[in-house]
Amino acid sequence: MPFELTILGSSSALPTAERYPTAQVLNVLERFFLADCGEGTQISLRRSKIKIGKISHIFISHLHGDHYLGLVGLVSTMSLLGYKSDIHVYAHSVIQDLVKPQLDFIRGDLSFKVIFHPLDFKKPQVIYSDKKVEVTSFPLKHSIPVCGFLFREQKKQPNIKKEMVEFYRIPIKQIQAIKEGAGFTTSEGKFIKHETLTTPARPPRSYAFCTDTAYFEPVAEIVKNADLLYHEATFLDDMAGWAAKTGHSTARQAAQIAKLADVKKLIIGHFSARYKSVAPFLKEAKEIFPETYLACDGDIHRIE
Amino acid sequence: MPFELTILGSSSALPTAERYPTAQVLNVLERFFLADCGEGTQISLRRSKIKIGKISHIFISHLHGDHYLGLVGLVSTMSLLGYKSDIHVYAHSVIQDLVKPQLDFIRGDLSFKVIFHPLDFKKPQVIYSDKKVEVTSFPLKHSIPVCGFLFREQKKQPNIKKEMVEFYRIPIKQIQAIKEGAGFTTSEGKFIKHETLTTPARPPRSYAFCTDTAYFEPVAEIVKNADLLYHEATFLDDMAGWAAKTGHSTARQAAQIAKLADVKKLIIGHFSARYKSVAPFLKEAKEIFPETYLACDGDIHRIE
Repeated sequence: MPFELTILGSSSALPTAERYPTAQVLNVLERFFLADCGEGTQISLRRSKIKIGKISHIFISHLHGDHYLGLVGLVSTMSLLGYKSDIHVYAHSVIQDLVKPQLDFIRGDLSFKVIFHPLDFKKPQVIYSDKKVEVTSFPLKHSIPVCGFLFREQKKQPNIKKEMVEFYRIPIKQIQAIKEGAGFTTSEGKFIKHETLTTPARPPRSYAFCTDTAYFEPVAEIVKNADLLYHEATFLDDMAGWAAKTGHSTARQAAQIAKLADVKKLIIGHFSARYKSVAPFLKEAKEIFPETYLACDGDIHRIE
Repeated sequence: MPFELTILGSSSALPTAERYPTAQVLNVLERFFLADCGEGTQISLRRSKIKIGKISHIFISHLHGDHYLGLVGLVSTMSLLGYKSDIHVYAHSVIQDLVKPQLDFIRGDLSFKVIFHPLDFKKPQVIYSDKKVEVTSFPLKHSIPVCGFLFREQKKQPNIKKEMVEFYRIPIKQIQAIKEGAGFTTSEGKFIKHETLTTPARPPRSYAFCTDTAYFEPVAEIVKNADLLYHEATFLDDMAGWAAKTGHSTARQAAQIAKLADVKKLIIGHFSARYKSVAPFLKEAKEIFPETYLACDGDIHRIE
């Protein structure tokens, strides 16, 4: 039952020798969702031993190069490998104009379709949903339109207690109704409550991806109680003025959002290349929100 | 007096965890020339501790993604770093259509011009020349138009022997003429030959970059006697048929070109990702041309 985030790139606009531009892959029950696709994403995927062919949904927060310039290379490699599944890209509508000439140039060779889904940068919107997972986009606050993404397992039905099925001899055809909330009346006319027959389902797990953004409190409401929050922290708090001006956050501000949202765990990343050490980011954030971790390329964060 | 090649990427179309797509940087007397610019080139440059701002001439062999998809990211980073020098890109004219939307999207932020120089894919052509270096493009043989590049130091003038200047009391104003081939007549009317007054200049060093290409003998004439030849070797010789069909070479064929051209040293690279070990490439090539080396990301090859 994996719910597992792999950091593929954790730098800000300027990559370093250790940190690639932003990209992450979230494995939710063996569905692989890519969040941002900076230059070198396909190389990071190989390093993390994640099969490129497993990815068919790509979410691009915004159109700064460090968040999307790996897209054409990734698509091109998928095609060279002969993959047949269509790729869905959720991004600003302008992305099509930006990558179209390059995709058209390899289009003759493309073995699948690339389908673009324009994001709404004004309000939250469910952009993907299947039996197991739902993805919601929501606006952030940056120098150009940006969306964050909330990945959440669908609410699960409660588990029926096996011993109750045997004890009350519940017919199979009634099981689904009980899972959906009904009780059960025995042949003797005794009514057994739903709560007696079932154990509650494991609460749906969730992950929120917030980059790039200035400190923006409305986010806290949307990512409320998430199991895991990634929030950018480009600067330390002594540069809060510059952070606001450039549409970025400080480590302290990321922690404040995590605290407001009462999430379980915070990961900070997108560190400016000007900092030689990122240790002060952790210290600053932990003062506000102790369950903070630093994003590092290749790291895996699991929600059990 | 550096003449130094750094391998930034040595994979073929599919990068691996160890090998980036094709890119190299040649330092000729502190002029830095980039040959191809695959995805991740800016990251490799950082890893090799080569200052991105030193590069102002970029040569793109052809428009397959693994040879040019790092260009926009590199240009974008140069601009973010505030560089002011214009960038010259030597490539197929179509490259402008491919990268224009992405460059235009950051154009407002671009702190310099990107100047494109279309290549001639029909015949060799001097495409760059200054006091110290000359670069010639020449056609290769692939599934789409490809150029190789020959980087050569300009022919140097001979060195005047200091002791001759003193002995014959040669006036400073005559030095340049002697360097250009003249002799010297003393005040007593004695003619001293040019060869007596000078020592020959060090022969100009040269490097040839040949990728992607099928086995193509005309290349040997162009890269004749080069100090260093990089020639692609995508496959081993048991796949010579497939190599020819896809416009690539085998290790044996690369070595044959090196032998025909009588170069001093051969580097092979662009290995297909299907090979787990590249050792057999070296063995196969060395049978024909013993002075063969394998390209590895980060390696430096110096010509003294």
